Formats: sequence, structure tokens, C-alpha cells
Amino acid sequence: MPDIIEPRVLKGFRDYLPEAEIERQALIDTLARVFRSFGFVPIDTPVLEYAEILLGKGGGETDKQVYRFKDNGDRDVAMRFDLTVPFARFMAEHVDELYLPFRRYHMAKVWRGENTQRGRYREFMQCDFDIVGTDAAAADADIVLLIHDALAALDIGSFTLRINHRTLFNRFIANLGAQDKAPAVLRLVDKLDKIGPAEVEKLLGEEIGASAAAKVLEYIRPEADFEATLKKLESLAGGPGPDSQRLREIWDSARSAGAVGPGASGQLVLDPSITRGLDYYTGVVFETRLDAMPEIGSVCGGGRYDELASLYTKKRLPGVGAAIGLDRLLTALESLGRTKGRSGYTEVLILALEESFGPRYQGLASALRKAGLATEIFPEKKKLAQQFAYAEKKGIPYALICGQDEAQKGTVTLRSMESRENREFASMAEAVAFLGGKKGL
Amino acid sequence: MPDIIEPRVLKGFRDYLPEAEIERQALIDTLARVFRSFGFVPIDTPVLEYAEILLGKGGGETDKQVYRFKDNGDRDVAMRFDLTVPFARFMAEHVDELYLPFRRYHMAKVWRGENTQRGRYREFMQCDFDIVGTDAAAADADIVLLIHDALAALDIGSFTLRINHRTLFNRFIANLGAQDKAPAVLRLVDKLDKIGPAEVEKLLGEEIGASAAAKVLEYIRPEADFEATLKKLESLAGGPGPDSQRLREIWDSARSAGAVGPGASGQLVLDPSITRGLDYYTGVVFETRLDAMPEIGSVCGGGRYDELASLYTKKRLPGVGAAIGLDRLLTALESLGRTKGRSGYTEVLILALEESFGPRYQGLASALRKAGLATEIFPEKKKLAQQFAYAEKKGIPYALICGQDEAQKGTVTLRSMESRENREFASMAEAVAFLGGKKGL
Repeated sequence: MPDIIEPRVLKGFRDYLPEAEIERQALIDTLARVFRSFGFVPIDTPVLEYAEILLGKGGGETDKQVYRFKDNGDRDVAMRFDLTVPFARFMAEHVDELYLPFRRYHMAKVWRGENTQRGRYREFMQCDFDIVGTDAAAADADIVLLIHDALAALDIGSFTLRINHRTLFNRFIANLGAQDKAPAVLRLVDKLDKIGPAEVEKLLGEEIGASAAAKVLEYIRPEADFEATLKKLESLAGGPGPDSQRLREIWDSARSAGAVGPGASGQLVLDPSITRGLDYYTGVVFETRLDAMPEIGSVCGGGRYDELASLYTKKRLPGVGAAIGLDRLLTALESLGRTKGRSGYTEVLILALEESFGPRYQGLASALRKAGLATEIFPEKKKLAQQFAYAEKKGIPYALICGQDEAQKGTVTLRSMESRENREFASMAEAVAFLGGKKGL
Repeated sequence: MPDIIEPRVLKGFRDYLPEAEIERQALIDTLARVFRSFGFVPIDTPVLEYAEILLGKGGGETDKQVYRFKDNGDRDVAMRFDLTVPFARFMAEHVDELYLPFRRYHMAKVWRGENTQRGRYREFMQCDFDIVGTDAAAADADIVLLIHDALAALDIGSFTLRINHRTLFNRFIANLGAQDKAPAVLRLVDKLDKIGPAEVEKLLGEEIGASAAAKVLEYIRPEADFEATLKKLESLAGGPGPDSQRLREIWDSARSAGAVGPGASGQLVLDPSITRGLDYYTGVVFETRLDAMPEIGSVCGGGRYDELASLYTKKRLPGVGAAIGLDRLLTALESLGRTKGRSGYTEVLILALEESFGPRYQGLASALRKAGLATEIFPEKKKLAQQFAYAEKKGIPYALICGQDEAQKGTVTLRSMESRENREFASMAEAVAFLGGKKGL
């Protein structure tokens, strides 16, 4: 007999045991349902791609975070580190086979050799959704409304969706006469959460002078409501424009769809300090925080871009999209006590009381399943205490008892695992009806 | 502007465009529903593992098919090539945190550097399900019944599930006095489909003599029904035993659960020629073919094993399981014309008739979604022909028309994309009721 190999996973990787995986599947199912209700379709792309595709031609000195290697055919390949780059490649390759605007979602694993000391995992799921092939405001509004409906469907408490417009901000900076300093200003504004307004103002002053810095601080401070903030921004940016009109249309759309105001699950806020980094986005940007857990950061962010796939095609593919942080949401659901904590799906465990009743139990199980009740049979006659312990561990609400007694009388007994009470039914049909009623079938 | 990088995927890999991915998701959803109805729970394991774990300590001269490399921390790692080995490692590592018997399913991608000339892909999905921690016949029956219910749920036509027992076969070989030739006999019997009975008998004759070869041919020929075949096997194997009794119990269970006989979606056959390879299985084995497409091979096979995880633990973990060939099933569904051929989920497309109606359309979309109807808005005012073409390409059954006219009257018009007929409704509520009725809501 060979030595045992120690069973272990790589650092930064993890198994999903049933309880965690059931929770994750439930989250994925809920999100997929909302995506579909907005007309989004799923796609999938390979986990492995040419390194050149994922990293660009300049990918010589690879990012340490990328899993990159030579395959057995000596190809330079890498595991995807996000879903955006493969999607850009996908659109460039398949745009002529698709219809535009193209609304897709993709929930799948990505890999990054992150520093695990910061509690990061090297294998994690991403969830992206985009509308590509249109510049229209309606698409921006769709993404905002979809985020609202997705978080509402997750029953994760109230949230705040912050929105801003990069062009409006750029107009303001130009109006201030500081357009050559725009990247530096954006970078400092991005630090507002981390270092606070006083420090941001001080550092801005060093870049563009104290009076301009004060104007920036005035610009990024939200007012009492969406329209008041927007009016201020328009005035500081030199007047209304397509950018501010678009923000207004998004707001009006959200109100019309019930995603702001009474009945809405979250609030939509115009927050002029939101920038979402420096390079990628060219129009609206947004991020979303849970009101009960702002400290975990944005659970859903994104924005509008001009060119999705310019690395791979000369076709212009503008779009708007966002990504949901599945792991953050799972953490939040758990912290907020909103997880189901299910160890299994089974609703009825048929106890093994008689060795020879195997076929009989299978008949009962089949009848329960046909009635829509997830059912399993304890496979061998063991002590009842052991069978009950199994039901408890797996969170099975009912045990079905059918021994010699019941078989002779044609009855069955149901035991509620919670109340520990037994109840006898004159027939299997009556027991099925009772369980169906409990479940609301 | 940099040169364009040609968008392409690696040889043996492929994208899933919406129509194919929707089909695959539907298949996965259906299977998950059936697994859950039998009390199975999902788990997940990492895509990357230590090469030692996946390949064993002797994995020095690696199989060319495995994607194996050094990660940035100089660890010898590999991408999983099946779901069985990771599951064995998983059980060895977590058995004390779980409840036994443990019923799990796992549907996930695996990677093998297969020869693509045979039409094989290097990235594909596997679907495994097992009951671990019990020797009981009830677990064997569960797997058989689950296969039946899964294929029935897929509406893929009738099928034949062939079952056999390795121990019974071994008893027969011993009874024949040829136990030292058992592996050679099994190997030849395994070739029955490929080379035919005459050739098998000839080659067997060279191994064990003509008269014993004739006995083997008699043994592996099914009789008129399950019991007749089983009686013959028992007699040739030296009498009934726990092995033949187990086959009988599985048969009785299947009959009791309605998985054989009238009303069953497939048939269960005792086929003494089924061996499922040489090494792994120790009890019942089974495989399943679609009656309309036997040529694609087994779409679901498996069996009972004594030791799942002996590489990683000294704990004995017997079990029974099977794997469904998702790609084969998808191919079969397509060939048989049973795919849905859906390009999307959208049920209503709201046409863009007025630039300024964005918020109004979002309100209508929200009302439709609340009524359970997947709805999207065409995001910009383009020619109606273009908007209709989009609806047709995406297979959207209804277009909702709301222009100046309708807005003034408070009406909406629905156009059936199939019949090209328009129908006006006095209110949105009436249109929603009509669509809900069509859908059976």
C-alpha cells in the first residue's frame, strides 16, 4: 500500500462545502433570473486563452498575478484574470454573428495570484453584465435599474447606488482652466474616502491652487437631492449639456420604474466624487454600497465606455456595463444573517426500518418526488437515533416512518424533525397532501 | 494606435454563443433540479490543484493530456482533468465535517489536451454524482432511478439503461476455473461492441480454450427479460449470491418506483456484457444509451466502488456514482430536434418610437417584469424595420408599441412577431393580463 498523499488545496484556493455552495448557487440563480428578466443572455468563453489575447502584445513582463504558462504544444497561454478582456475578444470575434445591441451576462471563475495575506482568494467568481453596441441613455438606465432589481431580489437590505458622469466632471475641470491637470485631480478625488476632504483639498491646492481646490471640493459635495446636485454641477461646469441631460434621464427613468422614491429597495444618489479609476470609463459611472455594511466597499460598480474591443477590432463597440462582487455579497449576506443556512435540499427522509422494504421505500420516494417534494431514503437499517441525527445535520424537516406496522395497516407516519412530533396518516396520498400543503404546493 | 491582435481562441477550445449557452444552462438547470429532488447537494473544488494530488506521487512522467505547470510560487500545479480525483481528495479532507452517506453532484469544467482531430475539445464540462459512505443496495438503486428520472426530465426520447454486477461475473469466471485469466476475459468482453461476438469468442478461445469461451458467450448473451437473464447468470456462476440478490433488489426498486414497465421513460436491462473497464468498479456497473442514437455511445455510466479516496486517507469510503456526458447529451438533443433553439429569454420588446419616452418605456418595462414577463427596451429610436429585425433575430414573441398616439389615448399596442398582427389594448393592465394569459401565468 502506497503512502497516503496529504489531502490539501493550494494556498489561496478553497473548497465549497454544501452549505456554502448551496448559498452561492442560490445567489447565482437569483441573479440569472433578474438578468433574464431584462433580456440579458448568457455566454461562456474558455478559461485558457493565448497570453497575447489576455495581456496584449506588450505582455512580455507579465503581471505576477497572472497564471501564465507554456502548454504541451508550446503555446504561450494564460488563465483568464477577469471576464472583461475575454468579452472584448469575444465581441470582436463574433460581432457579425450577433445582434446589436447585445446584452450579455457572464458568471464564471477567474484566477489571480493575489497576496493571500489580505484575505484575498486566488480563485474567485466574477459576474459581469453589459449592453454593447449603443450609446443610448436607455442602456445606461437599464444597467442602473438592473442593479436595483438584482439587489432588491437578493433581499440584502437597503443600498445606495451612486452615479456620476465623467464628461460632466471633465467639463467642470476645463471650465476651471485645469484640464492639463485633470488626471491628477481625478486621482486625488478618488482618494476622498481614504484620506478625507481636508487632505484632498490640501493636496489639490498644491496641484491647482487653493481657490480652484476649493471649487473642486464644492463640486464633489452632494446637495440635498439629485436635481439640486445636478443643477450645481451644471452651473459649475458651464451650463447644461448632453452629459447632465443624460443623468436627468436616468433619474427620470429610475423614478418611472419605481427604483427611486417610496417602494424602492435602495436609493439613487448623484455623487460627483465617484470616478471609478482613471482610464476606462468615458460616460456615466456608478457604484453601490450596502447601507448596513458600507465598509465592505462597492458590491456593484461599472460605467459607460466608448471602445470595448479596440485591441482586437477596428469596429467601434461602445457600451455600458457593471460587475457584481459575488464574494462580497456572499460575505454580506452571511454577516447580515440573510443566508438560508441550508445543508441540503431534502424535504423528506424515508427512514430505513426494514431490510426488505427497499423497493417499497423507493415507491414511496417516487410518489413524494412526483408531488414536488425532494426525497431521499436512508440507505441501510441503522439505529433510529443515527438516522435522526443525519436528518438533523442535513436540515431535513420531515422523516417518513414506514415499518411493519404501517405496512400492514397501509398507513405512514410523518415525524416533524423540529417539533419531534409524529403524526399518522391513513394513506400515503394523505401524507403527500399534508406535506404539499405545508410547502404551499 | 497599436496593431490589432487577431481575436481567436486556442485550438480545441470554443466560445459558447447565447443560443448554445442557453441550451447548456437549461440542461444544467434540469439536471440540478433532478439531483436536488433525490437529496443530492452541490459542492465545488478548485480548478487548480497540486499536481501530486491530481496525478499521484508517481506523476513524474506526466500524461501529455494534463495541463501542468509551475505557478509563480514555483509550485507544481495542474488543472483538473476530471471531477473524480478532486472529489476523492475533497472527501478525504472534509469527511469529518460532512454527514454520511454523502450525496453530492458536481457540474464543472475539466481540461485535457486531447487530440482535437477526433472532434474532441480540450475544455469540456463533466457532471458527476455519487453516494459515498455506504455499501447499501438502496444507494445503487438510487443512482439507477436518478439516471431514469434525469433522462426522462430531459425529454430526450426512450433510452436503455444496462446494468451488470462485477462480482457476479467474477464468480462465473472462477466457477469456470479461469480466475487467473479474468482480466484478459474482461478486456475481450469489453470489445464485444467493436469486434462482434464471433471474434470475441475466437480470441477468448485462444486464452481459455474453446469450450470455456463458448460458456462466456452464453453468459454475456441477455435472455428475454431481467429475471430470466439473472437466473441464467446465477446458474452459470454457481448459484445465487449477494451480488445477484442486489441486482434483483435494484430491479424490484425500479419497478416499485415506476422506472420500469408501462409509464417508464426508458428500459432497464440486465446486460452481462457490460464491464465498464477493468480497474475501478467492484460491484454494480451501468451505462445508458439513447434508443434513437445508440451510436454516440453511453450518455451516463458508472458503478459501485470500494474505496473512493485510498490515495489520501486510510478511512474506507465505499460508494456508488455515475457521470452524465453533458456534451453528448447536447449533441443528441440537437440531432433529435429537441433543443429549444432560443436566442434569448426576452418575451416583450418595447419599441423606441419617441426620443423623449425613455422614462415612460422604463415604467412600462417595470410593470411587465413585475408581472413575470422578461422585457427589454430597444434603446434608441431607429427605423421600425431595424427594431423588428432585432426582435426576430432574438426570437422575441411580442413587440410593445407606445408612440404619441397611444400615449395620448392611454393605450398600448402589442404586435405578435409571429403573426405580424397588431392588437390595441385600452390600458397597460389589459396588455399585461393578455400576455400573462398567453404565458399561462
